[in-house]
Amino acid sequence: MQDKKKIPKSAVSRISLYLREVTRIEEDGRDRISSAELGDYTGLTDAQVRKDLSHFGQFGISGTGYDVSKLKTAMRQILGKDNIWPIVLAGVGNIGSALLRYPGFKSQGFFIKEAFDSSRKKIGRRFGDITVKDIKDIGDIEKDKSIKIAILAVSLEGAQQVADMLVASGVRCILNFAPCVLKVNNGVVVRNIDLSNELENFSFTLSQPAMLKNGTEIS
Amino acid sequence: MQDKKKIPKSAVSRISLYLREVTRIEEDGRDRISSAELGDYTGLTDAQVRKDLSHFGQFGISGTGYDVSKLKTAMRQILGKDNIWPIVLAGVGNIGSALLRYPGFKSQGFFIKEAFDSSRKKIGRRFGDITVKDIKDIGDIEKDKSIKIAILAVSLEGAQQVADMLVASGVRCILNFAPCVLKVNNGVVVRNIDLSNELENFSFTLSQPAMLKNGTEIS
Repeated sequence: MQDKKKIPKSAVSRISLYLREVTRIEEDGRDRISSAELGDYTGLTDAQVRKDLSHFGQFGISGTGYDVSKLKTAMRQILGKDNIWPIVLAGVGNIGSALLRYPGFKSQGFFIKEAFDSSRKKIGRRFGDITVKDIKDIGDIEKDKSIKIAILAVSLEGAQQVADMLVASGVRCILNFAPCVLKVNNGVVVRNIDLSNELENFSFTLSQPAMLKNGTEIS
Repeated sequence: MQDKKKIPKSAVSRISLYLREVTRIEEDGRDRISSAELGDYTGLTDAQVRKDLSHFGQFGISGTGYDVSKLKTAMRQILGKDNIWPIVLAGVGNIGSALLRYPGFKSQGFFIKEAFDSSRKKIGRRFGDITVKDIKDIGDIEKDKSIKIAILAVSLEGAQQVADMLVASGVRCILNFAPCVLKVNNGVVVRNIDLSNELENFSFTLSQPAMLKNGTEIS
């Protein structure tokens, strides 16, 4: 396989979508898929699919489509899915506890290994194998060198401080549900899930009927 | 104020961020804010802030910053926040029930007005003022002309079918938590919240240390 560094970061979310479909197709017992079909499943153009998949080398043969198994293996490797990634969860409120109960992470190669909260009601509570710990002790994850990913689901007020503690303890990637823009050092990647922001995109669109001509948008 | 149509769609998420900060600043009793400060709060450059805010007319006076109150009013109007937007929730599982319990929507101008699920265990269950209804009856929302926004939090298997029912019933904007790309008509806007996709961005990044030089990313 060619050099990993050739894959542009902008393609990663799309590769994630392709992998999902390719995995499903393999489970259905099929061994070939065309770029057109993959485009149809993912809402992307044929040309975009071919361009993205060209990063993985010559798995496509004109007229017969891509080799599903090889494509899946290559995409899993690119996305780091040959590892299991432990996650620290900070904040066990509505969203945090929903994530603790969510069974889908494990099949995707992720699992919540530690959970922390500041509330006395939450500390000590068990969710399956996980016991919620006091957020004051979140620095203890530094001893566990494997934890590089955090989900931040604390309130707005505590978000930056907890993010700082996470980063100081070795976390390099934060999925942030708090409605704020975190300040982090270079070398730390934050992705924000901001429901109000998403909904405001809708209220904007609905307030401006001319905008409603765009159809599906992947975001 | 100038023509709404001039605001590019790409700016909407940023305007949503500015509005949040401007609202907070107004609550703090301040009446001016500079583009540099707004950039600092939102992780955007000074130039980007000035460019985005230029869509709202001449609220900035060089050296004294923007008029907080006027800016807030203009941004609320653009984002359609002078209305209260009712939402239909399809799927009351882990995520759906967390959203039903989430108190933050109302202060943001949104509220879940109806909730549907297919499970006998869920149908009839109450969350505050909301009683979960049978998802077979989701077409009934058509009578309520005010519901244009849906949150889709059903399982993968049912997602497309429920989306079709929602669209047939007048929904024009879908926030989709199901891990699939929905097919919808032109005129319907879908935004996807795909946790696995987000986490795969992280596992990709962690697998490729060279990618970790990017710092914060707004997504």
